[in-house]
Amino acid sequence: MRIRRWLACLLGVALLATMSLTALAAPDGAQAKYVFFFIGDGMGFAQINTAEIFAQRIEEPDAMGVRKMAFTQFPYTGSVTTYDAESFCPDSASTGTSYATGNKTLGGVVNMDVTKTIAYPIITRMAKDSGYKVGVVSTVSIDHATPACFYANQASRGDYYDIGLQLVNSGFDFFGGGTFLQPAGKDGDKEDLFEIAKANGFAIPETREEILALDSASGRVFAPNPVIGDAAAMLYEIDRIHMAPDSLSLADYTRKAIDVLDNEDGFFLMIEGGKIDWACHANDAAASMRDVIALSDAVQVAVEFAEAHPGETLIVVTGDHETGGMTIGFAATGYSTFFEKTIPQDISFVEFDHYVARMRGEGISFEDAMLAVRSHFGLIAPDAPEAADEANAGMVLSPFECERLLAAYEQSMIPAGERGAQTEEQAVLYGTYEPFSVTVTHILNNKAGIGWTSYAHTGIPIPVFAMGAYAENFGGAYDNTDVFHKLVAAMGL
Amino acid sequence: MRIRRWLACLLGVALLATMSLTALAAPDGAQAKYVFFFIGDGMGFAQINTAEIFAQRIEEPDAMGVRKMAFTQFPYTGSVTTYDAESFCPDSASTGTSYATGNKTLGGVVNMDVTKTIAYPIITRMAKDSGYKVGVVSTVSIDHATPACFYANQASRGDYYDIGLQLVNSGFDFFGGGTFLQPAGKDGDKEDLFEIAKANGFAIPETREEILALDSASGRVFAPNPVIGDAAAMLYEIDRIHMAPDSLSLADYTRKAIDVLDNEDGFFLMIEGGKIDWACHANDAAASMRDVIALSDAVQVAVEFAEAHPGETLIVVTGDHETGGMTIGFAATGYSTFFEKTIPQDISFVEFDHYVARMRGEGISFEDAMLAVRSHFGLIAPDAPEAADEANAGMVLSPFECERLLAAYEQSMIPAGERGAQTEEQAVLYGTYEPFSVTVTHILNNKAGIGWTSYAHTGIPIPVFAMGAYAENFGGAYDNTDVFHKLVAAMGL
Repeated sequence: MRIRRWLACLLGVALLATMSLTALAAPDGAQAKYVFFFIGDGMGFAQINTAEIFAQRIEEPDAMGVRKMAFTQFPYTGSVTTYDAESFCPDSASTGTSYATGNKTLGGVVNMDVTKTIAYPIITRMAKDSGYKVGVVSTVSIDHATPACFYANQASRGDYYDIGLQLVNSGFDFFGGGTFLQPAGKDGDKEDLFEIAKANGFAIPETREEILALDSASGRVFAPNPVIGDAAAMLYEIDRIHMAPDSLSLADYTRKAIDVLDNEDGFFLMIEGGKIDWACHANDAAASMRDVIALSDAVQVAVEFAEAHPGETLIVVTGDHETGGMTIGFAATGYSTFFEKTIPQDISFVEFDHYVARMRGEGISFEDAMLAVRSHFGLIAPDAPEAADEANAGMVLSPFECERLLAAYEQSMIPAGERGAQTEEQAVLYGTYEPFSVTVTHILNNKAGIGWTSYAHTGIPIPVFAMGAYAENFGGAYDNTDVFHKLVAAMGL
Repeated sequence: MRIRRWLACLLGVALLATMSLTALAAPDGAQAKYVFFFIGDGMGFAQINTAEIFAQRIEEPDAMGVRKMAFTQFPYTGSVTTYDAESFCPDSASTGTSYATGNKTLGGVVNMDVTKTIAYPIITRMAKDSGYKVGVVSTVSIDHATPACFYANQASRGDYYDIGLQLVNSGFDFFGGGTFLQPAGKDGDKEDLFEIAKANGFAIPETREEILALDSASGRVFAPNPVIGDAAAMLYEIDRIHMAPDSLSLADYTRKAIDVLDNEDGFFLMIEGGKIDWACHANDAAASMRDVIALSDAVQVAVEFAEAHPGETLIVVTGDHETGGMTIGFAATGYSTFFEKTIPQDISFVEFDHYVARMRGEGISFEDAMLAVRSHFGLIAPDAPEAADEANAGMVLSPFECERLLAAYEQSMIPAGERGAQTEEQAVLYGTYEPFSVTVTHILNNKAGIGWTSYAHTGIPIPVFAMGAYAENFGGAYDNTDVFHKLVAAMGL
C-alpha cells in the first residue's frame, strides 16, 4: 500500500503542475477574455436529464444510458440556491438580478433594490466600461425579465417599453433572438423602438440572409428572428423543427453573436433558452426537452469557439430557477420510464391551443378531438380501431385517463370568460392553462414516467456547469448572487 | 483593464500555490488515509434543500435563507447519473453496486453481474486487503441493500440471512446502527447470526453505555442500536427526538465508528442515512427533513475528524438515487412556500400508522381521528373550534382537502385484506401506503409548498459533495460508477 500511495502522490504533483500550466496559459493574463453566460430559464437537473434520456431514446430506443448535453461534459459543476428577497420560488427578474448584479431583490424587479429606488450596477455595463463588447440573446422577447437583467434597471419587469428604451440606449453591441413585445408602448402611442434603435446606430437586419451575413464589421446590431411565435418570442424548438426547420435556431444566433462581437478586447455574451421555462410552466415535457437540446446545440458553438481560443474563454451554463417541479418518476409508472412515448409529439402546447380554440369555436366533438390528439401526441382513444393493435398498447388511454381528458374537453369547450371561478381541484389539474391541452401533456408525460407538481417556479437548487478560464471557481454549492462575483472576478472587473 | 487582469493573474498563481501545498500536506503521501463515504438513501437536491429551509425556519421563522447542511459547505460538488442496467429509476442494490464495485447491474442484485453469476470485487474488501480498517453503519437494517453492498455479494437483496452470514464472516472491523432483519433466517431455523458473529470475534455491546465505551481497543465490533424501530432499523429521527431523545443518533454512531476504527493504517467508513428513502417513499417530508439533518450532524463529526487530520482525510457525501419525486413547489401554493407548517409534525408516518390501525380496530370516528391529526400534524378540521382563530387559518383544511381526507379515512377503515383491487386513481393517491396517513402528509406537505410525484425511486441526477484529500476529483457531472473509480484512486487501491 505504501508504494502505491507514494506513486499516487507523485501523480498528484504532476497533475497539479499540469493544472497550473493550463490555468495560466492565457497569452496576456486576460484569462476570461471571452465570456459566455448561458441561462436555461427554468432549467434544473430534471429538465437537463430528461433531455439527455430523450435524446438518447431518439437515437437508440432500446439501450440504457444518456446522450450528454454539451455542457454536462464540462469539467466543473456547482449548484446554486435561487431564493430571492421574498420567496423560495423566485421569479426570473429577481434571479436575473442576482446573476447580473450580485443582489437579491423582490420578484418582478429588474436590477433594483427592494425599495425599487436604487439601481444596481449591471455586470454587462461594467464589462462594457472595461472594454468588452456585450451581447444579449434570448429565445423569448428581448425585453423579457431575464434578458432585461443584462441591460436594464426597472422597478417592474412588466414595463416592456421602458425596458426596450434602455436596450436601444444601452450602447451594447449585439441583441438577437426574440423581438420587442411593445415596440410602440402598451397603447401603441410611443415612439417606435426600432426607429430609436436605428437612430442610435443599430443595424436591424430583417431577413435570415441578412442576419447570416453579419460579421465583425456590422457594427451595433439588433437582429430579431424573422420567424416569431407567441409573445414576441422565437418558436419553441419542437415547432421550429416541425414547422420552420430552415429558420434561425439558438445555435445560429450564438454563431452570429460571436461573429459580430469577436474583437481583441473580448466580449461578454449572455444567451438565454427562455422557453424551457414557458414549456415547463405548461407542464409540456417534449417542448422543454427539445428546447434544452437547442440550448445544448448553442453551447456547442461556444465550446468550438473556446477550443479555438484556449485559456482565455470561459463558458458558464446554468438555469435561473426550476419550473414546474419536474421529476423523472410518476406514481402510476413506479420504477419504469418510457421516454420513447414522448417522441411522437410534434407540436407545442401553444400551437395545440390554437387547435383547441378552433375545437371550441367549431364545436368539434370529443371523438374528433381525439383524432387530433392521436395525430400530434400519439395517444389513442380506447375505442379507436388502432387500440386493438398490441403494438399500440402503451399509447392507449386507460379508463381513468379517458375520464380526465373528457372532463378537460368539457371544460375547454366553455369559453374562458364563462367558466366561472376555478375549484381547488381544477386549479391543481389545469392551473391557468387550457384544460384540454394541459391534460393531454400531463397524460402523455405521466405515461412516459415524467411527473410535475406545479405550474410555477420551484425552489430546488440549480446546476452550474463551467469550462475554460477560471471555471474551477464555479465548483461547490453556493448562492446565485455568488455567480455574479465569480464572473466579475474571472473578468477582472 | 489590462492591469486588473495582470493582478488577477498574479492572484491566480498565489491561489494555485496555496492549493498545491494543501493538497500535498499528507505526512506520508497517503492522501486519503481516512475515507468517509456517506450515502443519504433517496437523497437528491430536493431532500437536502428542503432540510436546509426547514432547519432555517425552525431557527428564524420569518427570515429568508437556508441553514446549510455540513456537507453543502464542502468545496467540491458533482452530480451523478443513477440509472442501472435496466431502469432510469434504479433500486438501492444496483446503485450500491455501482458505488461499491464500479459496475451497473439489475435492480435487486448486490455486487453481482446481470447474469447473477459473477461476483464483483468490493471496494471495502480491496481497502481491507490493502491494510485499511473497514466500517459500515446504517440507520436501516444492517443487511439492507445499501449497507449490504459494502460487504456482500448476493444475487438477491431479499436473502437477508445469507447477506448477514457474509457480514459475520467479513472480517471487517465495525458494523453499527440497524440490526439483522432475519438473524435466524426467514423461517427462524438457521444458526443465529449473533452467535456466529461472537464466534468470529465480534464484540456485541448491548446497551447504550457499552456502545459509548467502545474504543480502538475494542477489536471487531457489531453494535446494533438498543432502540430499534420498524423493520430492524433505528427510529426515524423525528421519532427519536420526540420519543427517545437519549438514544444513540447517527452522529453518535459516526463518533463511535471513528473511535473503534482509528489506527495508523487508516480506515474506510460507509455511513448510510437509510430512512430518508423510506420517509420519501411514503411522501413524509418532515420525517425526510429530520433524517437529512441527522445525516448532516453525522457528517459534522467526520468534518471535525478531518480538521484534526488535515491532508489525509477524504469525506464524500452523496445519495444513491432520489425518492418520491420531491419538489419545493406545489400547484395550489404557486410561488409561495410555508415550511413552518411542517414544524408541528412530531411523529413519522410509521408511528402514525399504529394509530390508524387502532382507529380501524376500535372504530374511531373521523371527528376523533381529526383530533389525532391536529395533535401530531397541526392540521385543523374546518368545523373545529380552533378553526375560527385567524392565527390558525393556514392550518385549517379546505373543503377539497377535507373531502380527500374523508375518502382516505373511509378507505383506511376497511381492513387492508378486504379493500379489493386499487383503482388507478387510488394507486396515484395512496400508492401502497395507509390511505389516511399518506393523505395527511400529502395535505400537510402541499400546504407547505412541497410536492411529490411518486412512491418509488426517481431518475434525476444526485449531488456529490467532497472535501479533503483528492476531493477535487469529485467535481463535474459523471456516472455513479465513476464514484467507485474516484474513491479507488484516492485510496491508491
